[in-house]
Amino acid sequence: MTPTPQQILEAVRGQKAWVSELFDELRAGSIDGDGVTRDTFGPGEQFGYGVVEGRAKAMGLAIEHDHGANMYMTLPGRDPGSPKIMMGSHIDSVPRGGNFDGAAGVIGGLVAQRALQSLGITPSCDVTTMAIRAEESVWFQVSYIGSRTAFGVLPDGALEAPRVDTGRPLSEHLAECGADIEQVRAGKAWLDAKDIRAFVEIHIEQAPQLVEAGLPLAIGTGVPGNFRYPYIRIAGEYAHVGLPRRFRKDAALAASDFALGLDKIWQENDAADRPMAFTIGRFHTNTDVHALTIVPGEMTLSLDVRAYDAPHLAELEQALFDLVRRIEAARGVTFDLGARASADVAPSDPGVFAGLTAAAERLSIPSQPLASPASHDTATFTVAGVPSAMLFVRNENGSHNPYEAMEIDDFIEASAVMTGWLIEQVTRD
Amino acid sequence: MTPTPQQILEAVRGQKAWVSELFDELRAGSIDGDGVTRDTFGPGEQFGYGVVEGRAKAMGLAIEHDHGANMYMTLPGRDPGSPKIMMGSHIDSVPRGGNFDGAAGVIGGLVAQRALQSLGITPSCDVTTMAIRAEESVWFQVSYIGSRTAFGVLPDGALEAPRVDTGRPLSEHLAECGADIEQVRAGKAWLDAKDIRAFVEIHIEQAPQLVEAGLPLAIGTGVPGNFRYPYIRIAGEYAHVGLPRRFRKDAALAASDFALGLDKIWQENDAADRPMAFTIGRFHTNTDVHALTIVPGEMTLSLDVRAYDAPHLAELEQALFDLVRRIEAARGVTFDLGARASADVAPSDPGVFAGLTAAAERLSIPSQPLASPASHDTATFTVAGVPSAMLFVRNENGSHNPYEAMEIDDFIEASAVMTGWLIEQVTRD
Repeated sequence: MTPTPQQILEAVRGQKAWVSELFDELRAGSIDGDGVTRDTFGPGEQFGYGVVEGRAKAMGLAIEHDHGANMYMTLPGRDPGSPKIMMGSHIDSVPRGGNFDGAAGVIGGLVAQRALQSLGITPSCDVTTMAIRAEESVWFQVSYIGSRTAFGVLPDGALEAPRVDTGRPLSEHLAECGADIEQVRAGKAWLDAKDIRAFVEIHIEQAPQLVEAGLPLAIGTGVPGNFRYPYIRIAGEYAHVGLPRRFRKDAALAASDFALGLDKIWQENDAADRPMAFTIGRFHTNTDVHALTIVPGEMTLSLDVRAYDAPHLAELEQALFDLVRRIEAARGVTFDLGARASADVAPSDPGVFAGLTAAAERLSIPSQPLASPASHDTATFTVAGVPSAMLFVRNENGSHNPYEAMEIDDFIEASAVMTGWLIEQVTRD
Repeated sequence: MTPTPQQILEAVRGQKAWVSELFDELRAGSIDGDGVTRDTFGPGEQFGYGVVEGRAKAMGLAIEHDHGANMYMTLPGRDPGSPKIMMGSHIDSVPRGGNFDGAAGVIGGLVAQRALQSLGITPSCDVTTMAIRAEESVWFQVSYIGSRTAFGVLPDGALEAPRVDTGRPLSEHLAECGADIEQVRAGKAWLDAKDIRAFVEIHIEQAPQLVEAGLPLAIGTGVPGNFRYPYIRIAGEYAHVGLPRRFRKDAALAASDFALGLDKIWQENDAADRPMAFTIGRFHTNTDVHALTIVPGEMTLSLDVRAYDAPHLAELEQALFDLVRRIEAARGVTFDLGARASADVAPSDPGVFAGLTAAAERLSIPSQPLASPASHDTATFTVAGVPSAMLFVRNENGSHNPYEAMEIDDFIEASAVMTGWLIEQVTRD
């Protein structure tokens, strides 16, 4: 009844042409210069949904759309009442990003469902691939819009967030994609953790660690939590270029102290094998005022700090406050940290992690555990109480850029591991 | 024949009401919010010229305008053919700047000429106060437009430079103020160093060093030379916020290394009593692309470095190159320094410096030597070969802002020192 490892590998590896063609179709329809743009709740994401829905229909899957315009593609199980197994990821991309970030996790789910079909397996429970909306926070500056809408936990005010390019609020963009704004506003939950046995997301790796390790894939140990200060302002004093050093209150030098102070903290954490990351993405003088011969009196910067356990995050935030106080005293400037946002840490479920590890071993596919400092929808499932984990696929050039370099063969191996785990789940009852 | 120190002091101090009223009239006509805007070759500067010309006419001075719209207000001497003595400064201001930066040097010249008149002195040579155009480089990003036009040394291309707010070229703005563009373009010289015995410029100090020292004025030891890189670009690599530290090529951290590396050099020079200054006025990620969750791949910055002798400047530039190489190697980024501009150092003339020092001593006015890191039109006179020096007036809050805090009493003392020096020059022959 249960297929052999060899049968599973053949059922997945045999889909390589189908997979390549699907990725190519997605790329061709969302190409934007060198890269791919599938804009969140816009024509790019809509195009991606259309392509994926077409494939799911051809596979005979049952298709549903929730109040937040997420899509669910289900291979029905023998007992539709029992908790289902979910897979999936997001369809959108950053502007001029890559073709694989997000879409790989959706296609991976379809590959696993097709493998069940070709192996003649009727699963014990429903097996659903979810195409999630709006994962890329660059568009609305809000994280996990799609998955949080599905669980009814979209934060207050998110519907009013303007899209960075159109300036129009999330509510308008959602409505245009068929969402029910009143249900979203009321916090309706389409998904409930008690109805979901597990969630697995395939995603390309966003660093070349697997290239370095020579492995096709990794099994995620968890999604980091973070704290963010999107608009930190440093107020110094604008001054004439003739002002001697001891009188200056230079905001750009204070910002440099801040950036390198955090970099030193990261170096120390790296040396102590305590994974974390910080990113200052925005870092600028006031472009309306700054000039060659004026000592800068203002700097604006953004900060994202991430780590894998709550006490570590708290310790890093305390170190940040200490650093700010030292710089204020040394440079005569004032920091205004501004609004703070945060996300809880989301460690992988030990059972799902062990199941994926065992599946890789059974299929003789080499892998390693990996903590990825990037954020993923899996975190929403974990925080909601769904046993979840991720699979990362080797990729040399990072994501969020046109140069993503995932090999289809590596993606196939990751899909095989997920399929092996899935078969174990849906055939043992 | 020569007045006593007491008579000179009375002739200058008696002008306090006249001086206050003139500064007030200038301020009232160019007020802009909190500050004063006398825009270069625009209505603000024109207004200032009108006010000053009215006073000069009332004093009976001979008035001339050169091909670059600079104005010369002359008290004729006994021998009009002998080299003249010049005083003066500029009329324009930065946007929302202060009332004293520039105008004080023009009014100081008129004060000295009025003192000669009230003391009944006919000078041995012509004594001219020059109201100089366009000193503030913020408007056209070109230094010393007025004084360099007068000496026929305006750099190539300057006439095409757009004003930052209007976008229209210098040539149009010049023509609107009565200049003769063809003569400017041909590099005509109105002034010739061999016809000028000396030039002295009164200017408010741009740092609170005299407040610190408790002195009303200082005698300048020289105007620094500089080298400038207005648009340095650092190219790193845009990357996902999930990228571990060892793979990053973060342009903002490289820029921070650069800024703090220069700051360290400045600290070392300060400790070794080698005056210099550096300013990074523009310091920014690419505001079209930067985002909370993207490792920044580009930084743009401006750099101005100044010092008082040419070997010191050369040494600082070499240190800059070394710093760039170290950061490129450490951070995996590339610097493009872009276009370079520079200005020669302009040490004060030892004779004029000694003469001003002696005049202060004779008048029992306390003073000190002072190297001011700011640029001034005096540098154009020095480089042209005119024996020149400056007087700086105590000012707590810097210049280029609405909070300049020059006391009129301190300004009067500086005018008295210049007048004492002038009388020594024009009565001894």
